[in-house]
Amino acid sequence: MAYNLLKGKKGIIFGALNEQSIAWKVAQRAVQEGAEIVLSNAPIALRMGELNKLAEECNAPVIGADVTSNDDINNLFTKTKEHFGGGVDFILHSIGMSINVRKNIPYYENNYDFTHKGFDISALSLHRILQAAMKHDAINDWGSVVALSYIAGQRYFPGYNDMADNKAMLESIARNFGYEYGVSKKVRVNTISQSPTRTTAGSGVKGFDGFIEFAEKMSPLGNADANQCADYCITLFSDLTKMVTMQNLFHDGGFSFTGVTQAVIDQMAK
Amino acid sequence: MAYNLLKGKKGIIFGALNEQSIAWKVAQRAVQEGAEIVLSNAPIALRMGELNKLAEECNAPVIGADVTSNDDINNLFTKTKEHFGGGVDFILHSIGMSINVRKNIPYYENNYDFTHKGFDISALSLHRILQAAMKHDAINDWGSVVALSYIAGQRYFPGYNDMADNKAMLESIARNFGYEYGVSKKVRVNTISQSPTRTTAGSGVKGFDGFIEFAEKMSPLGNADANQCADYCITLFSDLTKMVTMQNLFHDGGFSFTGVTQAVIDQMAK
Amino acid sequence: MAYNLLKGKKGIIFGALNEQSIAWKVAQRAVQEGAEIVLSNAPIALRMGELNKLAEECNAPVIGADVTSNDDINNLFTKTKEHFGGGVDFILHSIGMSINVRKNIPYYENNYDFTHKGFDISALSLHRILQAAMKHDAINDWGSVVALSYIAGQRYFPGYNDMADNKAMLESIARNFGYEYGVSKKVRVNTISQSPTRTTAGSGVKGFDGFIEFAEKMSPLGNADANQCADYCITLFSDLTKMVTMQNLFHDGGFSFTGVTQAVIDQMAK
Amino acid sequence: MAYNLLKGKKGIIFGALNEQSIAWKVAQRAVQEGAEIVLSNAPIALRMGELNKLAEECNAPVIGADVTSNDDINNLFTKTKEHFGGGVDFILHSIGMSINVRKNIPYYENNYDFTHKGFDISALSLHRILQAAMKHDAINDWGSVVALSYIAGQRYFPGYNDMADNKAMLESIARNFGYEYGVSKKVRVNTISQSPTRTTAGSGVKGFDGFIEFAEKMSPLGNADANQCADYCITLFSDLTKMVTMQNLFHDGGFSFTGVTQAVIDQMAK
Repeated sequence: MAYNLLKGKKGIIFGALNEQSIAWKVAQRAVQEGAEIVLSNAPIALRMGELNKLAEECNAPVIGADVTSNDDINNLFTKTKEHFGGGVDFILHSIGMSINVRKNIPYYENNYDFTHKGFDISALSLHRILQAAMKHDAINDWGSVVALSYIAGQRYFPGYNDMADNKAMLESIARNFGYEYGVSKKVRVNTISQSPTRTTAGSGVKGFDGFIEFAEKMSPLGNADANQCADYCITLFSDLTKMVTMQNLFHDGGFSFTGVTQAVIDQMAK
Repeated sequence: MAYNLLKGKKGIIFGALNEQSIAWKVAQRAVQEGAEIVLSNAPIALRMGELNKLAEECNAPVIGADVTSNDDINNLFTKTKEHFGGGVDFILHSIGMSINVRKNIPYYENNYDFTHKGFDISALSLHRILQAAMKHDAINDWGSVVALSYIAGQRYFPGYNDMADNKAMLESIARNFGYEYGVSKKVRVNTISQSPTRTTAGSGVKGFDGFIEFAEKMSPLGNADANQCADYCITLFSDLTKMVTMQNLFHDGGFSFTGVTQAVIDQMAK
Repeated sequence: MAYNLLKGKKGIIFGALNEQSIAWKVAQRAVQEGAEIVLSNAPIALRMGELNKLAEECNAPVIGADVTSNDDINNLFTKTKEHFGGGVDFILHSIGMSINVRKNIPYYENNYDFTHKGFDISALSLHRILQAAMKHDAINDWGSVVALSYIAGQRYFPGYNDMADNKAMLESIARNFGYEYGVSKKVRVNTISQSPTRTTAGSGVKGFDGFIEFAEKMSPLGNADANQCADYCITLFSDLTKMVTMQNLFHDGGFSFTGVTQAVIDQMAK
Repeated sequence: MAYNLLKGKKGIIFGALNEQSIAWKVAQRAVQEGAEIVLSNAPIALRMGELNKLAEECNAPVIGADVTSNDDINNLFTKTKEHFGGGVDFILHSIGMSINVRKNIPYYENNYDFTHKGFDISALSLHRILQAAMKHDAINDWGSVVALSYIAGQRYFPGYNDMADNKAMLESIARNFGYEYGVSKKVRVNTISQSPTRTTAGSGVKGFDGFIEFAEKMSPLGNADANQCADYCITLFSDLTKMVTMQNLFHDGGFSFTGVTQAVIDQMAK
């Protein structure tokens, strides 16, 4: 079902890798709601080739960018402004990677070169994107920026390692840049704290299966899926949420405020 | 601008008093988005007569209910189900009153009969409404309930008195009933924590003018107004936010996560 | 081990019922640390007779008070001031009761007379005590008030019913009165959010055994017990925490910020 | 006044620069309470020479360490274990530095080399210290680690720049390592979120004077000072708070839960 919620709006979607990606679904839904978009991802992700399928479907140019490179990000905004003949109205940041997680290193044995790299890609990238956007004046007044986060930014989860710290910092950057961009251009910046989702990124976390099942049993509505997350993103990009900014918004079927469910207690008693 | 976000949906709007009311705006916006509604308010509010204007505009029946009376609430749900030939998809709870506030009593000299009365009207009413709705099976699967709250539920504000405590409890009831109704019928329950708004209720708080100005200067986007709040309610009633539940959602231009603004510091230095 | 942390200080301990009670342990520890105390509880609790044993051990008078009665509370402060020849330096509020919980009523079938009664005893009692204390000028400058709470004030727990809402309101009252008493007399007011504890009150919650085990497995340090809670209370009554006020302090072995432990996931996978 | 709260305990204090430093006061209070300590700071801080005065007063060795160097930290723990003939019972982390702040760069024009450097010193250093401590088994069972933080980790404050993000990450690291160290050795890790304090570090923030005044007027008890912070640290190092872990504890005279005070509104109305 489409509502024309984003009719006439332009946006950039970071981080669509394949059909499982939340960013992939957001791109499709945004276009369905009347938006024009630009797709961006890291050079290595582009080489996998799947993004072209989405680009075609969405009639969207792909502009690669390593989000740890200021030059790449500047280039992206220059080309995006050329493409649209002006700025954008929304941006989705769905970017995260931790080498410590990938290598199954325990939190207390982290390699700090990996930590710096993960911090740069997963958290600081939001700052780089917004700083470059501001310099290029690339986001229109009352624009909306959404970054995807996870509740490990607030609470410990086994195996999530330094991605937890990166999410805490990502949410902090959203808050602080939300203030600056709000004061100067009425742009709002929020994070969505999404249920664990079976994406390529999510599946990289050790013990992900046991964990996603726990979350399912711990949420009165069950886990939110990627399509539902895309729907929620659309509302935040629309003109109906203009005064929501600097927030971390849980989209998780109630997990965040459930201490325990009867289902979990029963399962444990078995 | 309308998007047909609530096409085919039915709802109940509690608490529209006059054109300044947030509930008034929500009723108008809901109908604009394709919903059919029932309007409800306390008998004393109905006698003021303004609600009929809205009822006519919205082509909606008015069914009075004292929300501290189980009988009245049961009657409301019976009649609403008759009217719609079935259950509803959304409910707005915009109800609050404190005699201690009205009489400008300081927090440390409260009259506890007034406190009990205010608690019953402002917080427990949400429980009564949801308990009756469940008994009548009056909310359809995946329905959405929103109650309006205020950040005094988390932080001290002068003059807000026991309404602060009532808002804390209102949010707690939303959380707890959100769990129960989520598990049994996939119904979600959330509160919106709205900027201070120039409504008849808001203006009753002592020193409201100084206070609303402070909030304006303390919010990077300024205070959210009643129309914007109505827009936000629409997104929460829509099918795009099905997995958001048990949350308290700040709709306040960034006030909630701003420690201080330069504007406030400058004004204080004058 | 005693440190003389409360040497020369006077206090009132509400809610010691028997040796399992947290308040019982706090009374013992306060005296051990050099304090003089007054013990108070509801008339019905006094009739059980166990409190006299503690009174003797602590050389403390027992002054009964129904905390829903302003007269009783006024009488308590009058007599306490007479006894000490002046005001007190600390107060422990360990009071809570819900008839809906006792009768195993589900949250969505609550009896609202019971709800009002539970609200009065469990939450409003803190306001009554502080309002009376202020009127009697019964708390010395830089005094400390602690009320015991539970994380159900923030998150849903099965079977906790309206005690969850009462704890949310108790914490709100602590916040709001903490402001008022802080501004006028430098008195601080905090709540401690304690692990589930095997007391007479705790055991009244349906399914408490399964639940306390879950909490044990969910806390990196395990559940905090009553003795440890008493230790923590002592630090909050001491002069070392003068600037801590309006806070809800988790004393729970890390439960509150643990999303899930490996132990819980393993147990569920069995 | 001393209570022997830390009798027989050993600890490491990071970050004492001069008499204004909170770490300086914590060192003095810890010794006064019966502890033996080791002092550590960055080589550049040691060259200023003031620390020797404190070392003499506290009868404590000074072991320099650049906290961005694993080698330095390993050396520190090796020497500390030699000095004490075993592990320590507490650690204070009072370390923070941002070149972006020092150079008065606005948040939206940050230099990312500076950001990485500040992140390493201000946040990641806590991880490095704890990871090394675990490897050396240098913290005794039930030991206590405290890191100093600031409410900019939760809310925007002008001029605080990337130190805000660093504090958010510091608190996240405390949480996550608190879990790991709690499970393996019952060691607890917490942060204290302290009022703005007139230290050499604090004064480096642009507009600090206007800001500290605002905080003073916004806190019912006024700002907490360095001595009071030291007192609070002592309680967290003591055996009376064994079950408090993974928490961020506000020590701020009530600032954190005050929406606005009458004093601020009055001042703004002038």
